Amino acid sequence: MTNATIPDDFLDLFQKKAFAHLATLMKSGAPQLTPVWIDYDGECLLVNSRIGRLKNKNMRARPQVAIEIVDPENPYRYLSVRGTVAEIVYAEDTSHIDALAQRYLEIEKYPWAVEGEEREIFRIKPERVVARTIG
Amino acid sequence: MTNATIPDDFLDLFQKKAFAHLATLMKSGAPQLTPVWIDYDGECLLVNSRIGRLKNKNMRARPQVAIEIVDPENPYRYLSVRGTVAEIVYAEDTSHIDALAQRYLEIEKYPWAVEGEEREIFRIKPERVVARTIG
Repeated sequence: MTNATIPDDFLDLFQKKAFAHLATLMKSGAPQLTPVWIDYDGECLLVNSRIGRLKNKNMRARPQVAIEIVDPENPYRYLSVRGTVAEIVYAEDTSHIDALAQRYLEIEKYPWAVEGEEREIFRIKPERVVARTIG
Repeated sequence: MTNATIPDDFLDLFQKKAFAHLATLMKSGAPQLTPVWIDYDGECLLVNSRIGRLKNKNMRARPQVAIEIVDPENPYRYLSVRGTVAEIVYAEDTSHIDALAQRYLEIEKYPWAVEGEEREIFRIKPERVVARTIG
């Protein structure tokens, strides 16, 4: 299946501890990869990241990204999404990253905050979605 | 740790069923992601792919790539590599893909070959390696 929508039968990935791999673009045009927690608001994929990180800078300057999300129960079942950063939302509080910590780590508060950190949420609009189970 | 070498204490990833995520560049310059099996010859990362696939075309035209390799026993332990396609080797036989099938699927022959397929091996030279365990 290939279009711009996350198919319903892959929405379980946003309930599971499914890790995502985010490709952003360096200034040189080369791709850069980083593992991320991933959320979905029904329209956009959401990546919550500390301000100042390389991926934030890349996405601010060059909004074209790709994200792969893998089923933790079956590494051959995955979503591969190409899309564009549609919006960058300043995180006024820790509610979103704490909700991700709850889902991925099963603890109430995000444990890896650094002193004085500020976070922002990248809303990434899917433009091409591949949803596939190999084998 | 950040340099152009895969550190010795992460070489176990190339013995395990550690899946890799390969970012290539579309003609538009946008990144594209695909899951791959991964091998390492001591100098280059090796990706074995059927001729004609999108990632093959992308890597032939635009050799800048990124690869992330995740420890199947700890999703927070990973290698993130930026590099360049140094060589493309035509696969004269199925020995390399069969060796990968042995490692990843524990079977002797690669089971997903399509009729008449030809494969090639992309040798990717690491230029920047991040080896990290989060948390």
